[in-house]
Amino acid sequence: MEEIIYKPIGKIRTRFGKPEGIPIQPPGAEGITGKIELMPEYKKGLEDLEGFSHLILLYHCHLAGECSLLNKPFMEDKEHGIFAIRAPSRSNSIGLSVVRLEKIEGNILYLKDVDIVDGTPLLDIKLYVPQFDSREEVKIGWLEKI
Amino acid sequence: MEEIIYKPIGKIRTRFGKPEGIPIQPPGAEGITGKIELMPEYKKGLEDLEGFSHLILLYHCHLAGECSLLNKPFMEDKEHGIFAIRAPSRSNSIGLSVVRLEKIEGNILYLKDVDIVDGTPLLDIKLYVPQFDSREEVKIGWLEKI
Repeated sequence: MEEIIYKPIGKIRTRFGKPEGIPIQPPGAEGITGKIELMPEYKKGLEDLEGFSHLILLYHCHLAGECSLLNKPFMEDKEHGIFAIRAPSRSNSIGLSVVRLEKIEGNILYLKDVDIVDGTPLLDIKLYVPQFDSREEVKIGWLEKI
Repeated sequence: MEEIIYKPIGKIRTRFGKPEGIPIQPPGAEGITGKIELMPEYKKGLEDLEGFSHLILLYHCHLAGECSLLNKPFMEDKEHGIFAIRAPSRSNSIGLSVVRLEKIEGNILYLKDVDIVDGTPLLDIKLYVPQFDSREEVKIGWLEKI
């Protein structure tokens, strides 16, 4: 199948200069601040975003190593299929984090609950809408035992 | 910033041959079946996935038109910034849907609650884990008035 080409829309700025020591997922990063430096040409796309408390960030895990189809997650010592874990080294290394939006000043978005390494290229900002994105009665396979 | 190149890992198969008439977001598509035809070379990456009831699919909205930074969502006649709506025509047209996983047979994943057009190139499959992905006390800006 054909390759798909994306262009970063900005950079994510955080206190984490390297992947080691980054909290595991946003709940582990509660209160940790970060920001998005959106490229100025996309600023108009932020219109009416400020009333939303949570955003889904999609970003390119630029420091992720080569993908292995079986891998060990952070929380366990057993290998699982890459689609059954959330590790950043993936077939396509797209990261996803639900973060809190604190405020927007110009092309800068101030965030909380950020579990992302500094300098990460941002691909998309989506509204987090519970009706669309939240589910109940969820089974979480091997993670139930952790 | 540098371009980022991804390679589809499979295709999403649904009853929706064109974008018109597709339900708005998975909750509007409750019970609607679809499947993923994962490229056989990624099959090993499915190991231990079957115990999970919900998946986050990231896909390339290949039929999305050119991106305008202001756009009208399906539910309203007023324009908003592209990052304040969930329309498929985006700066990087990555779609995100939380779907139900029914079963896996070889490299085919059978799904429910599918709001995606047939033939869509799949970029990533992630576990949906409420602890990572679900939030409470969420404000949804202009959507509150809809």
